This record gives sequence, structure tokens and C-alpha cells, in this order.
Amino acid sequence: MKFSVDRQKLCEAVSHFSRAVAVKSTIPALEGILLSAEGNKLTMYAYNLELGMTKTLDIKGYEDGDIIVNAKLFGDIIRSMPQDTIDISVDERLMCHIKSGSASFDIMGIASSEFPEMPSNNDGVQITLPSDVLKNMVRETIFAVAQNDAKPVHTGILFEAEPNLLRLVAVDGFRLAVRQEPIVNDKQLSFVVSGKAIGEAVKIIGEEVENINIKVGRRHVSFEISGYVLISRLLEGEFLKYQSIIPEQTTTKVKVNCSELANTVERISLIISDRIKTPVRCTINEEEMLLSCVSTLGKSQDSCPVAFEGEELNIGFNSRFLLDALRAVEADEIVMKFNGPLAPMIIEPVEGNEFLYMIMPMRIRNEN
Amino acid sequence: MKFSVDRQKLCEAVSHFSRAVAVKSTIPALEGILLSAEGNKLTMYAYNLELGMTKTLDIKGYEDGDIIVNAKLFGDIIRSMPQDTIDISVDERLMCHIKSGSASFDIMGIASSEFPEMPSNNDGVQITLPSDVLKNMVRETIFAVAQNDAKPVHTGILFEAEPNLLRLVAVDGFRLAVRQEPIVNDKQLSFVVSGKAIGEAVKIIGEEVENINIKVGRRHVSFEISGYVLISRLLEGEFLKYQSIIPEQTTTKVKVNCSELANTVERISLIISDRIKTPVRCTINEEEMLLSCVSTLGKSQDSCPVAFEGEELNIGFNSRFLLDALRAVEADEIVMKFNGPLAPMIIEPVEGNEFLYMIMPMRIRNEN
Repeated sequence: MKFSVDRQKLCEAVSHFSRAVAVKSTIPALEGILLSAEGNKLTMYAYNLELGMTKTLDIKGYEDGDIIVNAKLFGDIIRSMPQDTIDISVDERLMCHIKSGSASFDIMGIASSEFPEMPSNNDGVQITLPSDVLKNMVRETIFAVAQNDAKPVHTGILFEAEPNLLRLVAVDGFRLAVRQEPIVNDKQLSFVVSGKAIGEAVKIIGEEVENINIKVGRRHVSFEISGYVLISRLLEGEFLKYQSIIPEQTTTKVKVNCSELANTVERISLIISDRIKTPVRCTINEEEMLLSCVSTLGKSQDSCPVAFEGEELNIGFNSRFLLDALRAVEADEIVMKFNGPLAPMIIEPVEGNEFLYMIMPMRIRNEN
Repeated sequence: MKFSVDRQKLCEAVSHFSRAVAVKSTIPALEGILLSAEGNKLTMYAYNLELGMTKTLDIKGYEDGDIIVNAKLFGDIIRSMPQDTIDISVDERLMCHIKSGSASFDIMGIASSEFPEMPSNNDGVQITLPSDVLKNMVRETIFAVAQNDAKPVHTGILFEAEPNLLRLVAVDGFRLAVRQEPIVNDKQLSFVVSGKAIGEAVKIIGEEVENINIKVGRRHVSFEISGYVLISRLLEGEFLKYQSIIPEQTTTKVKVNCSELANTVERISLIISDRIKTPVRCTINEEEMLLSCVSTLGKSQDSCPVAFEGEELNIGFNSRFLLDALRAVEADEIVMKFNGPLAPMIIEPVEGNEFLYMIMPMRIRNEN
């Protein structure tokens, strides 16, 4: 194998590939990138058994071939190279020579036959949406993905495509996040993508808005982003029928400035020590939402003005869960709907149904 | 105790004070800041038994008194406060009330009697120098301070003041750093300041250049920086007579671009794994300095053009030591002086004697 390649383009690709490379593995090939040169094309592959990635770069090819190189070391070397073009070649003993200007490196490669078999996803139903829409929708739901494997399907995000609509849903037993956006689509689809995989995938989305193709096969889903193809196994199992757990009744309803409330929650949470999850107590009345907290470190209290409807209420929440939801909202104002101190609380936009966050309350002692 | 204080000023002070507060201590008072209000002045104290700090702020005082508050928690609260003025009061049960706008906190304080006795340094010889000069001189020597206590005095930086000159020296057994600058001074002084203490002290030096007073007492040294007084114990013991270990003879001398050499050393060091300290091999001849490295990960090689005098040479160095010295140099070009493969190498400016770095070589196998 022998080729010359543009340093900048290779650097960018290697940096994105780090997302699909195993950080520490007993199988060295999983920490590597497979480079495969054919004619004037270099195809790169990485697969950490959760997320796979492929990308093709233009090169000046002299000799076809393939090799696996350690992604971290290869990336460090490429980035540090002094000139714009890099010459890469591999000899028969799998030694990979990397040269640019006066600098040269010889690093040991791994035979391409050691690379794990990557899933392919050639046929499947395709939906297309703008990259910024996908990125925001994932950012605004992923925090609610379950962190433990008690129900594996809930470690993923549910994608529900309906005619002209895409909905993302995540749930972890304490909270629910639902985000929907209009997209150009005529298909009816429902699938669950690993939270870790989609979280890494959207990180390669750049500032510039482009179309992303999502191709859903029988067992895998692939994302085409800026020429990178990412593939991940679909999660199997029955995802929570989330519609059924959303309370229909509302006994207390407030309208509040979202970032002001988030700042207030963050402030009063300062006295919550990490080990003991003291609840944030919300006392809601006609004038304000009074937030307070009592921990071993002391007491904190603050308030937010609200527009109020219904019954006065005393309710407790995990401050982290409140903050995650409030920080995910892009709107200035939100509506919070309560149904007594033991039922889940709902955060919604003032108009429309772009997002719905639901948080289970924490029991609080009734001091007052 | 009761007073009102400007949030911004208190924030800045608390943030600087974190440098003199113990991070984790079995004595809670060492993790705290002592606040002492008298009239319209608030004096703050912190002392982690290595570095002490004092600062006085203007306040609107209502009632004198003092209290120790946990520095981390107090700082977090102050920073998050919504308004420009903060009201602080302490009740007879040592509960500290902090209030600003709608937000209020009650945190438990500690009686001021628990605060460790802070050293004082009222009389002593004083030298004065510009803040940027001190900051640079410390930055450019502190990396060579010994990290272990084998010889405690070498965990500090030697300050040598002579008429119109200040010299800083650090040494760790493998390398030596000497920096000197002309300053307005008529005293002859020599003292050793803990590297940790002076390292933290210079961090509070801001962008704006001002004069710093260094007051050297019998057992302590204090620094006056922007109204903060920092105090530290002087290190005792005999500091290395560094002049005697600098080789007088030079058999090979090269002039080289400093940042280019630093980049080259950094690049070829990429294949040095952290555990095994493989040396960087320098092969110096008429045309260039060829740098190379062989490790379990592979081989690297690069070169730098040099202006050469004397004998050709093959010598090995710890890449970290080379880089620390090269990155500390502010000049474009440096002179490197060698005296064979086993004697220490010296890095000097092309003209003058502003800095001198000396590095012990590492033995290399003579492959060539």
C-alpha cells in the first residue's frame, strides 16, 4: 500500500473516527482504523462493536492495500506533521511508514484480516432531515436515556417517523423526554437507536446545515453525515408506551420564564452535596414559585414570579432532573402542569407540542 | 457580624483565596476563609499551612464580628447571586446568612477561634519588582523544582537578589534552571521559597503590570500583589552551589531556532509511551540536528537545521526535560552547548545571560 494524502482532510477524518474507535480494548484492532487504498480512493473504517464508521477520501494512490493502525497514535502523528501532504506506505512486514517533510515515523500496523466484521445496511427505508434539526432533537432528549441496563431498550432513543413528522422519545423511569419536529417524510417508521451511538454520531455534525440521510434496515440503522456513514445496531424490545403514562388531569398550571427558573434551581441546588440527593422543594402559589432546599450544608431559598392557575401546591424534585429538562428547552417561556404532589409534572411549550418533558416528583416531608 | 458588600469584588477575592485554602483537610477551618468585619472594612484570611493570604475589602458595616466559612461553598454561593450587592450576617449560633435579591442562603460557619495561627512578617528586607517580571521568571524556572522531598530545600525556588539584579534558580537533580533580570535594588539577599507556594502566588497576578513588594523576614517571606498579602515559610537547608556544576568546557556548540526545535522534539516524542521513558537521540553534525526515537510503538525521526561549531555528537535526552526548557525560552534563537555525550547540556541565549538551562543527558546505546 502506498499513497499521498492531504493532511488537513485526513486529520479531520481521523478526529471524527475517534468516536467509533474503542478507547481501551483487549482486541487491538478495535482501537484501530482500517485504511484501505484502492486506486485514488482511501476508505477508512472504524467499529467499536457499538458504532461503526466509514468514510472515503481522495488520495494520490501508488499501490493498493490495507492496514489497521492504532487510531490514537496515528491521529497524534498526522496532526503533528509539518507539511500539507503526507506520504503513507506499508511494507510486507506490516510496518506503516508515515512521512511529511523532514519528519518520518514507522509504526507497527495490524493485518486487515483482524478487523471485526462490520454490519452493512444496504437496503432499508430512508428518511432525510436537516442536520441541525437532528442535532437539537438528540441534544434535547438524550439526557433522559436510561443509564442502566435494567431494560436495555430504554438505553436508546425511540425514533418515530410519521407523515411529515419525526418524534424522538427517551425515558429512564424517573423522567420522560419527547421532542417532535415537522420533516419532509411520507413513511411510518419506529425504531430505537443506542443513546451512546447516536450521541457520538451527532457530534460529527458541523456548523453548516446539510441533509442527513437515516436508513433503517431490519437490524441496523445508518446515518449519512457529511460523507461519513455511521452504522449502529437497532435496540430490540418493547419501548414504553409513553402516551399512556402522561397524566391527563392538571390541578395546578404555571407559566414561567424558563432560563430564570433554571438559574434559580441551579443556585439553590448549590447546597445539595453530591452524595445525598436532597429534593428541591417547590411551593407554588398565586404570586410565585418559591424554591427551597435543606441539606446538611445549610438552607437555600429563592423565588420565581409565575402566572398561576389552579390549586396551591407543595412538591419536591430531583434538582438534576429539573435542570436537565429546563436547560434542554430553547423557548423563553414554558408551561408547567402539576396534578398534586405525587403525580409527575409536565413541562410544555406555551403553544404547540414541540417538546414534552415529564419528571417524577420526590416525596418531601410536609414541614409547613 | 453584619455587612453589605459588592458582589464582584467579593467574588474576585474569594476566587483568589482558593489558592491558599486546603482542598481536602481533616481540619475544616483549613478549607475555610476567615471573614473579619470591623467598621467599614472586611479582612479576609486563608491559610493552608503552606501559603497564607490576606486581603481587605471596603464594606458597609453594621456590626463587627468574625466567622470562618467553607471557601468552596461560600464561593459557589457568592458567584451565583443574582444582584450586585450581597448582605452577610452571622447569628449567635454561627449560622451565616447570605442574601441578595430574592435569593437567600443559611450556611453553618465555624468559630474564628478555630482558625490556625497565621505567621506574620512585619519586619524584613524589601525588594520591589514589576509583576510581569516576577510572573515570567517564576514560569520559566518552576518546572525544574524537585518534585520529591529527598532534599526539601530543592522543592523551592532560590531567589538571589544582588545590586540591580534578581536571579531565580531551580534544580531537581536532572536539570537546572537559572533566570535573571535587572531590577531596581540595592540589597544583597538569598532565600528559598516553596515552589508550590510561589506557583500559586503568581497566579493571582493579572494582565495589568504593577509593582510587587517582596518582604523577606527571618523565617517567612511575603508578597504584596494587588492588595493581596501572601505569606509563606522560607525553606531551610543548603541550596545547591549551582555555579560549580556548570561545565566550563564546550566541545560542540549549535545555534538553533527554539520553537522549531521544540515542535520537532514534541513530534518525535509522540511514540514515547508514558510508562517507559525512551530517550530522544540527538545526532549533531555540520548541517543539522537529527532527532530520533525508538520505542515499542515504533520509530520516529526528524531534523532541525543548525549553525554548528566543534565536534560531531550523539547524545540522548529525556524529551520532557528538553521540552520544558525549550518551551520556557522566550527568545527566537538559542545556543546549545555540549561537552560530550555524558556531560550536561546547556541552553543559553545567543547574547546575554538572561537564562541558563542545564539538562543531564540519558545514556543511549550506540547503534550507529
